Amino acid sequence: MRDLQKIYDYVDAHAQEYIELLQKFCRQPSISAQNIGMREMVDLILEELSSLGVSVDVVETSGNPIIYGELEGVNKDRTLSFYNHYDVQPPEPLEEWKSDPFAAEIRDGKIYARGATDNKGSLLCRLCAIRAFQEVYGELPLRIKLIYEGEEEIGSPHLSEFAEKYPERLKTDGFAWEGGTKQINGPLEVSFGVKGLLYIELRCRTANSDLHSSNAAIVKNPAWRLVQALATMKDANDHILIDGFYDNVKAPTAYEMECLKTLDYKEDEVKQRMGLDGFINDLTGIDLLNKLYYQPTANIAGFKAGYIGDGAKTVMPGSAVVKMDLRLVPDQMPDEILDKVRKHLDKRGFTDIEVVRLSGEPPFRANPECLFAQTVVKCVKPVYGMDPEVLVSSSGTTAMYQFCHSAGLDAVMFGAGNVASNIHAPNENIIIEDYIQAIKMAATVMEEFANAKES
Amino acid sequence: MRDLQKIYDYVDAHAQEYIELLQKFCRQPSISAQNIGMREMVDLILEELSSLGVSVDVVETSGNPIIYGELEGVNKDRTLSFYNHYDVQPPEPLEEWKSDPFAAEIRDGKIYARGATDNKGSLLCRLCAIRAFQEVYGELPLRIKLIYEGEEEIGSPHLSEFAEKYPERLKTDGFAWEGGTKQINGPLEVSFGVKGLLYIELRCRTANSDLHSSNAAIVKNPAWRLVQALATMKDANDHILIDGFYDNVKAPTAYEMECLKTLDYKEDEVKQRMGLDGFINDLTGIDLLNKLYYQPTANIAGFKAGYIGDGAKTVMPGSAVVKMDLRLVPDQMPDEILDKVRKHLDKRGFTDIEVVRLSGEPPFRANPECLFAQTVVKCVKPVYGMDPEVLVSSSGTTAMYQFCHSAGLDAVMFGAGNVASNIHAPNENIIIEDYIQAIKMAATVMEEFANAKES
Repeated sequence: MRDLQKIYDYVDAHAQEYIELLQKFCRQPSISAQNIGMREMVDLILEELSSLGVSVDVVETSGNPIIYGELEGVNKDRTLSFYNHYDVQPPEPLEEWKSDPFAAEIRDGKIYARGATDNKGSLLCRLCAIRAFQEVYGELPLRIKLIYEGEEEIGSPHLSEFAEKYPERLKTDGFAWEGGTKQINGPLEVSFGVKGLLYIELRCRTANSDLHSSNAAIVKNPAWRLVQALATMKDANDHILIDGFYDNVKAPTAYEMECLKTLDYKEDEVKQRMGLDGFINDLTGIDLLNKLYYQPTANIAGFKAGYIGDGAKTVMPGSAVVKMDLRLVPDQMPDEILDKVRKHLDKRGFTDIEVVRLSGEPPFRANPECLFAQTVVKCVKPVYGMDPEVLVSSSGTTAMYQFCHSAGLDAVMFGAGNVASNIHAPNENIIIEDYIQAIKMAATVMEEFANAKES
Repeated sequence: MRDLQKIYDYVDAHAQEYIELLQKFCRQPSISAQNIGMREMVDLILEELSSLGVSVDVVETSGNPIIYGELEGVNKDRTLSFYNHYDVQPPEPLEEWKSDPFAAEIRDGKIYARGATDNKGSLLCRLCAIRAFQEVYGELPLRIKLIYEGEEEIGSPHLSEFAEKYPERLKTDGFAWEGGTKQINGPLEVSFGVKGLLYIELRCRTANSDLHSSNAAIVKNPAWRLVQALATMKDANDHILIDGFYDNVKAPTAYEMECLKTLDYKEDEVKQRMGLDGFINDLTGIDLLNKLYYQPTANIAGFKAGYIGDGAKTVMPGSAVVKMDLRLVPDQMPDEILDKVRKHLDKRGFTDIEVVRLSGEPPFRANPECLFAQTVVKCVKPVYGMDPEVLVSSSGTTAMYQFCHSAGLDAVMFGAGNVASNIHAPNENIIIEDYIQAIKMAATVMEEFANAKES
């Protein structure tokens, strides 16, 4: 057994170096949706992996490559895998950022950058833990596998291809997913599942270009068509009206409902931080958490039609687009819901509205009783000084299903972000202290899992 | 009486010069909604007016100035006034233009530019006619008054201020409004009225910024709020459901319905040009024209929410905006409709939706039997070789009411554009031959109206 205190001391002594490394990673844009900076980001990662002596294979896809790496450790019978992604969300709307999204400016003990938490902070805290073991002990406690994809933010279109091609690379004893969240000055969250996602565009075109709006008297307006179609898809109480949408939704079990009680969801803080008057249907307590974690959604993620600049322009749009993301829960499947949307629209005469699938990801839930899950939960208190919140399913989505469902992996999620990290939003940030703690947490999990025994 | 043929010959001989002048005007952007190039455009006009010896007053407003000019003519007892505007619509969406909107490129006998028809072509054809009289006869047939505003495309917010301040400058015998349209290889349209316009934004904000879309389970989505509000405002048959919206709509008179029969509206051509499958409710013939010219509209001119770039971004919008233009017919008034929209939303619980009035213009109809109207109609055949279409009301809007209603002016509209000029849309253009004809038409109206007598 290696003394973790020595590792913690090393991490504290080298904090500045770790911070600068994260800034360097954040300053390299890597926006998969816009295909900006992806290759440059890959090179930056490869440079870092090379300095750690990781044996690397860059697996090319028709999109962005998947970087696979391995490192041997003392316990050769136990493997710990880390999944992360090196792509980030687009930074827009730029005007709402207080500093350049790729400047990685430090203010008030935080690094502000697109990707600071999601997912570069999470990716690096694990690499930094590896470096700490190498520098302090010259060895790792167990075998490490690294899987970094560059298309998580656009729905991981090539991850199953990788899983099918390299089944041996997925073999592992513990599977740590990309990241998780933490209360500010409160407990770390450890979670075992994610919602699924169907991302679609509803497109309508009624004319070959935008027209003078005097034509609105006689020409069908595609924005009105979309408005009228959408109005059939959800009621005023946020109940989704797409025919058959809830058919395959499993009601939460008694155990799942019990888990909600362990969560420390700070409603007032959330409302204040996001600037909300209240939650949907004035929900609160367990009802709120039930809806957040166990219920599916049908979100309008974007609506674009006609003139969207400042001031008045009297045009009638020739075409209009709605982006929708629908978060799914077990056992809803993306293609099932896609089909239901299409049939729902057809049945109501909206055959002129095209439904385009941009991405889909089934929901996934791991077994919270497995050795790795239990080990991670046990590691939290020594590092953070308090027990974790244990979350059956995150309210968000990652491509867990593709890996974990068929390979039978029980993925566990924990990371470096917190509830105010603004991931996917302007002014994304990471608290530097959280980042350093997350390095220690990663190291602790490596050491403890190397020695953990099935009971 | 001056020989108009000499004027026509002069115009033909100087066509190239007139074309280059229009290109020069089009190359100067003057986008009132974005406050781009307005002063530079004023200078360009003043240079031209100065070379014609026009006595000019630049009337400053808190927005863009109104240029007023006078020129004396032989018949001192008759005045002809020309209203035009020097501002243009924004050129967006730029990617749909085949050439730069401010390059004024000539292709296939047309000048392509934002403002080529609306309204720089119309403004200049009248100035060019003045130059032709000056060069050929050294005099004008009658007194000319010029009123050029720079805010027509944003609802003419300072035109009534001008009318109130300078009532004597509005005194005239014939009032020619900014422009009109023409069938391609077909009749010129002469019209006597316009629809009104209420331009509003519906704004909704539920959070202080865009959020990760996992929050869609519990946070109200402002785009959904707007969709649900809009869905209460119009039915699937394009009937507007805003409470009391049609209360003050006058049914078309028998005479007005008769006028529709004189129109040569080429339905198939319109459908093909605009790329339409058909018109709203499959209307055709008189029913179609009745809706186009005599019925009000409630158009979604723009809808902006969340992520509107390429690809997928899983955000929940923090705010959303709908731009609406509502074209009004006698006797609907903008503020009346604004009030009705507000009350309609409040009654249905949409008190969280802000209604912001961007501009308003009442509808206006002149008397088609007055001397000037009759003179203009009579001038068309000698210039164009065929009788005009006589339109009681255009389907569009200009600020006629502000001038004409209180000053008792019977405005007549005729111009240089055609039905495929793409005004307010990408690839706006003017047919060069139409522009030259419009110069001759303006000259003919000056001459004939100088000599016309009340019957």
